[in-house]
Amino acid sequence: MALKTRGDYLEALRKLRPNIYKFGELIEDVITHPATKRTVESHCRSFDASHDPELADLYTTTSIFTGDKIHRWNSMTQSSDDLINNMRLKRQNYRRTGTCSGAVCVGWNAQNTLWAVTEEIDEEFGTDYKERLKKWILYAQENGVTAAGALTDAKGNRSLKPSQQDDPDVHLHIKEVREDGIIIRGAKLMICGTAASQEIFLLPGGVYKEEDSDYALACVVPRDVEGLTIIEATRPSDRRDLEETAEGEVPNTGITQGLLLFEDVFVPNERVFMCGEAKYTTKFIQFFTTNYRACIGACVAGQGDVMIGASVLMARANGLSTKVFSNKLVEMSINNQITYGLGVGACAMGIKHPSGSFFADHLTAHTNKVMVATLPYETKRLTQEIGGGIVETGCMPSYKDFTNPEYGELLQKYYKAGNASAEARYRAARLSEWLTIGGGVPGCMHGGGSPDGARLIVRFMTPYEEYADYAREIIGIEEKIPEPNRKK
Amino acid sequence: MALKTRGDYLEALRKLRPNIYKFGELIEDVITHPATKRTVESHCRSFDASHDPELADLYTTTSIFTGDKIHRWNSMTQSSDDLINNMRLKRQNYRRTGTCSGAVCVGWNAQNTLWAVTEEIDEEFGTDYKERLKKWILYAQENGVTAAGALTDAKGNRSLKPSQQDDPDVHLHIKEVREDGIIIRGAKLMICGTAASQEIFLLPGGVYKEEDSDYALACVVPRDVEGLTIIEATRPSDRRDLEETAEGEVPNTGITQGLLLFEDVFVPNERVFMCGEAKYTTKFIQFFTTNYRACIGACVAGQGDVMIGASVLMARANGLSTKVFSNKLVEMSINNQITYGLGVGACAMGIKHPSGSFFADHLTAHTNKVMVATLPYETKRLTQEIGGGIVETGCMPSYKDFTNPEYGELLQKYYKAGNASAEARYRAARLSEWLTIGGGVPGCMHGGGSPDGARLIVRFMTPYEEYADYAREIIGIEEKIPEPNRKK
Amino acid sequence: MALKTRGDYLEALRKLRPNIYKFGELIEDVITHPATKRTVESHCRSFDASHDPELADLYTTTSIFTGDKIHRWNSMTQSSDDLINNMRLKRQNYRRTGTCSGAVCVGWNAQNTLWAVTEEIDEEFGTDYKERLKKWILYAQENGVTAAGALTDAKGNRSLKPSQQDDPDVHLHIKEVREDGIIIRGAKLMICGTAASQEIFLLPGGVYKEEDSDYALACVVPRDVEGLTIIEATRPSDRRDLEETAEGEVPNTGITQGLLLFEDVFVPNERVFMCGEAKYTTKFIQFFTTNYRACIGACVAGQGDVMIGASVLMARANGLSTKVFSNKLVEMSINNQITYGLGVGACAMGIKHPSGSFFADHLTAHTNKVMVATLPYETKRLTQEIGGGIVETGCMPSYKDFTNPEYGELLQKYYKAGNASAEARYRAARLSEWLTIGGGVPGCMHGGGSPDGARLIVRFMTPYEEYADYAREIIGIEEKIPEPNRKK
Amino acid sequence: MALKTRGDYLEALRKLRPNIYKFGELIEDVITHPATKRTVESHCRSFDASHDPELADLYTTTSIFTGDKIHRWNSMTQSSDDLINNMRLKRQNYRRTGTCSGAVCVGWNAQNTLWAVTEEIDEEFGTDYKERLKKWILYAQENGVTAAGALTDAKGNRSLKPSQQDDPDVHLHIKEVREDGIIIRGAKLMICGTAASQEIFLLPGGVYKEEDSDYALACVVPRDVEGLTIIEATRPSDRRDLEETAEGEVPNTGITQGLLLFEDVFVPNERVFMCGEAKYTTKFIQFFTTNYRACIGACVAGQGDVMIGASVLMARANGLSTKVFSNKLVEMSINNQITYGLGVGACAMGIKHPSGSFFADHLTAHTNKVMVATLPYETKRLTQEIGGGIVETGCMPSYKDFTNPEYGELLQKYYKAGNASAEARYRAARLSEWLTIGGGVPGCMHGGGSPDGARLIVRFMTPYEEYADYAREIIGIEEKIPEPNRKK
Repeated sequence: MALKTRGDYLEALRKLRPNIYKFGELIEDVITHPATKRTVESHCRSFDASHDPELADLYTTTSIFTGDKIHRWNSMTQSSDDLINNMRLKRQNYRRTGTCSGAVCVGWNAQNTLWAVTEEIDEEFGTDYKERLKKWILYAQENGVTAAGALTDAKGNRSLKPSQQDDPDVHLHIKEVREDGIIIRGAKLMICGTAASQEIFLLPGGVYKEEDSDYALACVVPRDVEGLTIIEATRPSDRRDLEETAEGEVPNTGITQGLLLFEDVFVPNERVFMCGEAKYTTKFIQFFTTNYRACIGACVAGQGDVMIGASVLMARANGLSTKVFSNKLVEMSINNQITYGLGVGACAMGIKHPSGSFFADHLTAHTNKVMVATLPYETKRLTQEIGGGIVETGCMPSYKDFTNPEYGELLQKYYKAGNASAEARYRAARLSEWLTIGGGVPGCMHGGGSPDGARLIVRFMTPYEEYADYAREIIGIEEKIPEPNRKK
Repeated sequence: MALKTRGDYLEALRKLRPNIYKFGELIEDVITHPATKRTVESHCRSFDASHDPELADLYTTTSIFTGDKIHRWNSMTQSSDDLINNMRLKRQNYRRTGTCSGAVCVGWNAQNTLWAVTEEIDEEFGTDYKERLKKWILYAQENGVTAAGALTDAKGNRSLKPSQQDDPDVHLHIKEVREDGIIIRGAKLMICGTAASQEIFLLPGGVYKEEDSDYALACVVPRDVEGLTIIEATRPSDRRDLEETAEGEVPNTGITQGLLLFEDVFVPNERVFMCGEAKYTTKFIQFFTTNYRACIGACVAGQGDVMIGASVLMARANGLSTKVFSNKLVEMSINNQITYGLGVGACAMGIKHPSGSFFADHLTAHTNKVMVATLPYETKRLTQEIGGGIVETGCMPSYKDFTNPEYGELLQKYYKAGNASAEARYRAARLSEWLTIGGGVPGCMHGGGSPDGARLIVRFMTPYEEYADYAREIIGIEEKIPEPNRKK
Repeated sequence: MALKTRGDYLEALRKLRPNIYKFGELIEDVITHPATKRTVESHCRSFDASHDPELADLYTTTSIFTGDKIHRWNSMTQSSDDLINNMRLKRQNYRRTGTCSGAVCVGWNAQNTLWAVTEEIDEEFGTDYKERLKKWILYAQENGVTAAGALTDAKGNRSLKPSQQDDPDVHLHIKEVREDGIIIRGAKLMICGTAASQEIFLLPGGVYKEEDSDYALACVVPRDVEGLTIIEATRPSDRRDLEETAEGEVPNTGITQGLLLFEDVFVPNERVFMCGEAKYTTKFIQFFTTNYRACIGACVAGQGDVMIGASVLMARANGLSTKVFSNKLVEMSINNQITYGLGVGACAMGIKHPSGSFFADHLTAHTNKVMVATLPYETKRLTQEIGGGIVETGCMPSYKDFTNPEYGELLQKYYKAGNASAEARYRAARLSEWLTIGGGVPGCMHGGGSPDGARLIVRFMTPYEEYADYAREIIGIEEKIPEPNRKK
Repeated sequence: MALKTRGDYLEALRKLRPNIYKFGELIEDVITHPATKRTVESHCRSFDASHDPELADLYTTTSIFTGDKIHRWNSMTQSSDDLINNMRLKRQNYRRTGTCSGAVCVGWNAQNTLWAVTEEIDEEFGTDYKERLKKWILYAQENGVTAAGALTDAKGNRSLKPSQQDDPDVHLHIKEVREDGIIIRGAKLMICGTAASQEIFLLPGGVYKEEDSDYALACVVPRDVEGLTIIEATRPSDRRDLEETAEGEVPNTGITQGLLLFEDVFVPNERVFMCGEAKYTTKFIQFFTTNYRACIGACVAGQGDVMIGASVLMARANGLSTKVFSNKLVEMSINNQITYGLGVGACAMGIKHPSGSFFADHLTAHTNKVMVATLPYETKRLTQEIGGGIVETGCMPSYKDFTNPEYGELLQKYYKAGNASAEARYRAARLSEWLTIGGGVPGCMHGGGSPDGARLIVRFMTPYEEYADYAREIIGIEEKIPEPNRKK
C-alpha cells in the first residue's frame, strides 16, 4: 500500500542516522529537536492530508506505472492539469503550514524534469538513466518517500566557471568514476527541507560546457548517506524556536534550510541519472526552472492568504473593522492571485515532452518569477501596515516576559485591545511578524534562481525583430531599421 | 460556404443604410470615409487572416452546430482552450492592427454569454430565447457576421437606479412590448467597433432589480436599424485622420467608438433574448465580465508587443542600440506577459456551464482587469521614455509641414538621426505617439467596466473568514475573533 | 517703469515680423491665430498677475541692479528663497493656465545660469561676456521681456559627437566669427513657448570637448531675427484648437513648441555670451539642469492640482461624492507634493556661486527629475480612473456634434448625469482628457533632459566607497573589498 | 562645561537604579548587558562625534539661553536651518550606527514642541509651564542629557476613547493631582531608546477632548523613577545579541524598545508641562508629528546609505562588479534622497511659532511619512536582490557553526567567493540581513504614527474646492458643481 501515514513517515525518519548539526550540536532526533521538529510537523501534515476526506483528492493521485493510489508528490506530472494540481497542493500546503515544505516539492520536480532529460541523454549516449530513475520512482511511490532537491552550489567567485575556481569543491562534482558508482565531493547550500526528508536529489546548479563536465551530475542519495554532513542555516529569529516558551511565539510548523557538505560520498550507479553529459545541463535547468517558477506562484499566494487571515485577526484584535482596511486587503488578494493565476497560465500554455513530462511555458513562468520576487514584499508591507506597530517589528515582550509570574499579568492587561484576549492578540501579532520579518519568510526572491536570471530569459524570449516588423507594418515603414554599428 | 472574404465583408457593409455622423456630417460610406475607413480596414484584416495559411487555424474553427468551417469570432467557446484561442486571436489582432477590433470581439462574447443565460431563463420562465439565439448564431456563422456589443448606458446620475432617474431614457429600455416584438428607447454610449459592424448586440448595462425590469433587455439589431442614429466619438488626435496627409501621421488601421441613439426602435421577437427578466441581469454581467476581463489581457499584451516593436525602431532610429534600453524593454515584455498569462490562467481555471458555454475564473479575471487598468500605462510611459522627446508628446511638425515644398526638405534634414531615414524615424515616432497618447490608445481602464468594480468583486471573492481560520490554526489561537460591534 | 501690462506685452508681440508656420501656413498674427493665441493668453496671465493684489508679490520682485520693481521672471535668483519663489510662481502658473508658459521660465533660468558661467569664462579668458549679459538683463528687466530658451539640437546620430556627424548642422553651431558678431547655423527643436516670446536664448545642447568648440555657443536673439524660421510642432489633439467649436473642447490657455531653423543668422557681439569655450559647456549644463530639474517639480505639481480639481468636478458631475475616491485623490495630492517638496528641498540645500547665482543641490534635483518623469503619469492614470470612460480617451462627441442643431439636444440629454449640466460635465471631461491625453500634457519626461541622464548623475553623485566604509565599520569588517578584476 | 564625553555619559547611566527587564531577568547594568549594550554604544557615538573635529559642527551647537557650546540634541530648533541640521545629524547617525538612537531624537523634538505648546497654554490658563520647561532644558543642556520620548499608549480598543475603555490604565493618565506634583498611572509601549536614556518625556498619545482631560499630560521623568518598570521588547533575531558569538553576527551598535509600566509614579510640579489642558493635545500632536515626520526622512535615508554600502560589499564579495547592479543601486539612492530631500523641503517651507520654535510644513511632512513607510521597503528588497540568497533570509550557518572547531573550516571554505575573505563575506551578509529582516529594521512604518494617519492629514490639507475652481476657470465652466445630496 503506497499511502503512508504520519506514523509511517516519522518511523522512516527515525531510522536515519543523525548527521545534522545546528548551533554547534548534533541533532540526535529531528522529530523532537526544537530546531527541526517544526519542519517535520509541516511535512507530517501532508501525510495527514492524504487521508483527510476533504483533501485526499488533492494530496493523492494514481501512479501511471502501477495504477496504485500514491501521494501526489511522488507522481508524474504529465499534463497541464497535473501541474495545476501541483500548484493547488502548494497553495493549500502554505495555508495549512504557513510556509514551505521542501521535501514534498523539489524532489518531485526533480524526478519529473529528469524523466525528460534522461530520455534525451539515453537517446544520444545509449545510457540507461531513465530506467534507473523509473526504479527509484517506483520505490519512492511505494514508500511515500519525501525527497528534497539540491541545486545551489557554494559557487565561489561568481565571475568564474567551476573549472576556473581556485577550489574545485565550490561546485559539487564527480571526483571519481568507479565501476559500481561515483564518488562526489563539494557542497550544496541553502537546501530547503533536508531535515525533514528521507532522500535528496543532487542536481546541476548551472549550465555547464564540456570543460566543466565533471560538474554535470544528477543523482539521488539518502539523507544520511555516509560522508554527508548537514549544518542547519540559522533563519531570522529562529533562536526563539529553542526557547521553552516557543509555543507562544512561533507556529508548530516551519521550514529549515541545510548546508550539505559532501566529503567523498559514494553514489551507486542505480542512483546516478547524469554523469558528465554537460550539454544536458542546459535542458535540465530550462525544464526544472520553468516548472519551479510557474508553481512557486502558488506558494507565495498561499502564504499571502495566511497574511490576509492574520491581518483580519489583527484588525479585529485592535478593535477595528476589516472594512477600515478594505483597500489594503483587496490589494493583498490581488497580489496573491497574480502569482497564482500567472503560474496557472504558464502551466496551461505548457508543452508535453516526448517522454511524457509536461513543462510550463517559459516566458510566462519566468515572468512569474519576477512577480514572485516583488509582490510578496508588498503584501508583507501591507500586513505590517494593517497590524500596527506591534506587528511591524514584533515590538512586544518575549513570551517569557509576557507570562512572567511577577509582571506578566500587568503586561497582559496592556495587550488586551479589541475583540480578542491579550493572548490571542499577542499570538496573531507574532504570526504576522513571523510571516513578514521572521522565520516564516520564504526565500521567494532567490529560491529557484534570481529574478535577474528570469529577466534575462524574458529578454531572450521576447522576439524584438518580429515585434519591430509589426510596428513597421502598422505605420507603413518599408525600410528595415538595423542595430547601429559599433564605432571603433 | 461560411468563410467570407474581405470583399464579401465590404459588400455587406456597403448595403447598410448610412446612419453614422461625425463632426456634424453624415458618413455616406464607412469604407471610404477617412473617419471610419481605418477601423473597417482593421476588421478586414481578420477576414484576410481567415484565408492566410499561417493564421487560418487561429482565425477560423468549426461550427459545433453544422461542422462547417467558420470564422472563429462566430464560434461557441465551450472549453478553456476555446477561451485561450480567443485570447490568442486577440493578441495577434492587436499585433496586426495596433488597436482593437470591436466587431469581432464583443458580439462574440455576447452570444456565448447569452447562450448560458438564455438557458437559465428559459428553464425558469419557459421562454424560447435560446432557440432564437441559436437561429441568429447560425445566420451569423453562415454569413461571417461582424457584431459589436453594447452595454454602457448613458446612466445619468450614478447614485440612482434606472427607474429613479429623472429621464427614463438614460438607460436603454423596453418602451413597449408588442406581439411581434418590442420598442426600445434610450442610448448606448462609447460602443466600440460599431462603424465596422453589421450587427450590434444590445445588452444589460448593469445589475437590475425587479423594479427596473424594463431595463433588463438583451437583443441584437442590424447596425442600420430604423430609428438608430450613431454619432462617432472623437478620439485623441483623430482629426489627423481627416487630413490629406494622414498617411504619414497615422496607421491605416484604427478603431472608433459610436454613441448609439435609439428613438423607438422596433426589434422583432426572434432577435430578443431577454425581456424583463431582471434577476438574470446579474448572471449576465457575471458571465460577460469574467470572460471579457480574462481575455482583454491579450489585447493590451498585443498592443504592448507593438510598443516594444516601436521602441526598438525608435532606439535604432535615434542611433542607439536596443541594449541601452534592455531593462526597460524587459519590463515592457513582463507587463505584456502578466496580463496575457493571468488571463490564460483565468481561462484555465474556468468552469463549464450546463449550456456548454465556458466561463473564466472570476477572481482571476477580475484581478486581471485591475492589471489591465494599470500595467499598460507603465508600458506606455516606457515607450515614451525610450523614444525620446519626439515620442513623448509627438513634438514634431505635422506631416504637411514635414513635406512642405518650401521648408520640408530643411525639416527632414533635421529628423535624420541613426540608422533610419527621416521619413522612417518620423513615422516610428508618430506610431509611438499614436499608441501612447493618440488615437490608438484603447479604453483599457474603463472598457468592460471600471477597475473599482473589479476590486469590489475581488473583495467579495476573497474568503476572509477561511483565511483567518488558517492563521488561527497555524499560530494556535483557539478563540474566534469577530468583527467589532458598532458603537451607537 | 519696468512692470508691463497685458496690453504692453501684446503690443510688443505685434511688432515682431511673422516667421512662424504651422500646417503649411504662415501665422500672420500669433495673438489671434488659433494655433498660437492660447499660449499667448497663458503668458498674458503672468502680466495680469503682476498687477493682481493677491499675486503681485509672487509675480514681481525688485531688481538687484536698479532697485526697481520688476517682473519676477526677469529677476536674478540669488538665494534658496529666490529659487523657491521661482517654484511657487510655477505651481501657481500651472494652476491658472493648466500647462506651461515657456517664455517666463527657460529664459529666466538661462540668464541666471549664464550669470555664473560667464563670470568663470571671463576670469579664465579675459572676455566680457558677463558685462554684455548684464546689459541685456537690464534691458529685459526694463521692458518686461519674455524670453524662451533653446537647448535641444536636432542631434542626428545619438552615438556620435557633433563634429563626427555627416551633417554639421544637426547641432546649432558657429559658422563664422566676424568682428561685430557671429553667424550661426543649425536648428533647435521642440522649443517651448517660442510663439509667445519676444526673445530666445540659444544655449549649449550638451557637454562638448575641444574638438566641438564650434558648438559651444550661448547667445540671445529676437524671436523674429533675420534667417530664423519657426515651424510649430503639432501636439496631441491640437487640430481641435483650429475648429470654430474649439471653445467647448479646449481651454483658452495652452502651450506650443517650435522647431527653430537657423539659416546663417547673424548675432551681434553684445548678444553673445559663449563663443567656443567648450570646457564651460559642462558647467553650463550642470548649473542649468540642476535648477531646471529642481523647479520643474512645481510645474507638474501645479498641473496635478488642476487634475485633482478636474477629478473632483468629474466625480460630482457623474453623481458621485468625492469621498468615493478619497484614496485616489490623496494619492494624487501626495504625488504632487513629492515633486514640489523634493524640489524645494533641492533649493534649500543649494549653494551660492561666487557670481551671486544660487544653484540647487545636484543629487536632489536629479532625483526629482526621475520623479517628475514618473509620478505625473500615475496622477494622470488616476484622473482617468476617477473620471470614467468619457475621460479616459475623451470618448465623447465633438463639440460640433454636441451642439448640432439636429441631434445635439438629444446627445446633451444623455450627457447630463449628476450635479452638473451636460455642458459642464462635457467640459470637465474634455479638460481631464486635455490634461492627461491631449494638448495639455507637458513634456515632463524629456523636457530638460531625459530621466536616464538624471539617473546617471545620481549614480555619479552617490559615494559608493564612503557608504561601503560605513557598512564595514558597523559590522566590523577590517579588510577593504575591491571591485573584481576583469578576466581577460 | 556642557559638552560631555562618552565617559561622562556612561557614568551617568551607571548611577541609575536597575529597572529594566528582558527575558524574565533584571538587567543590572545596561552598559555591559548584551541586551542593551549595543544601544548604549550607539548613543556613545554621538558623544564621540561631539568631540570629533570632522563632526563636531554637526553634533554640537550654541545654547540660545547661555551662549554655551552644547550637544545639538539639547538645543532649541528655531529656524529651518536648525531643523535641516537635525536631519543632517540623523542621517549621519544612521550611517555611523546602522540604526536609530532614540534618546538623542524624541526628547529633543519633545522639548521644542512643548516650548511652543506651553507658551500657548500659559497664555490661556496663566500657568508657568514654559518657565518650568526652560529650567529643565537648561539642566539638560548643562548635563548633556539624553532623553527618550514616549507617546504611544497601550490604547486598548482602538474604536473607543480613553475614558470609554474598560480599563482606564490603557492610556497613561493623571491619577491624582497633589500640591507638589501628580501621580500618574498606565503604560507607554514600544518606546525607543529608553535603555540608553537618562530621562524620558511622557507625552500625549493622541488628541483628546475635555472628557479625557485626565489623559492630557506632558512631563519628564528620570528613567529610573520610582514606580516605573521597563520591559524590553524582543526584536527580530535579537536573541543573537545574547550569544557569545554575537560579535560575528550582529553590529556593536543597535536599538531597543522598552515597554514602560507606570504604577502610581509621582512627578513633581517642576517636571510637569501639561496637566489636563485637553484642547492643547491637538496642537501638541500637530507640532510634534510635523517635525518628526519631516526629519524621519533623514533616518531612513541614512540607513539606506548603509544598505547601499552593504550591497556594494556583497556584490564584490560574490565576485561581481557593482556595475552589474547599477540600476538597482541608483534606485536605492533615489529612494534615500526622496525621503531626505522631501523632509528638507518640509523644513524649508516651515513656519516660525511665536515662541521661537520652528515647525515644518504639514502637508509636505505628512507626505514624507507615507514615503518613509513605503520606499525603505523597496530599498530593503533591492538589498536582498543584490546580496543573493544568503542575504535574503540570512540563510547561513550561525557564527557558532561557522567557527566550529570540527567543521567550521570546511564551512568557511564554501563561503569564500569573490574579492573577500569568507569572514568578510559572512559579516557583510549578516549586516544586510540585520538591516532588512533583522534587529536593525527600524519602525519606519508606524514609528511616530501610522501612514494612514498621515494620509488623513494630506486629505484635509488638500484644498479640493480651490483646485476645482482652477479647473473650472481653465475650461470655462461657470456653474459650481456641488457634492451630491445623500438620498434618504
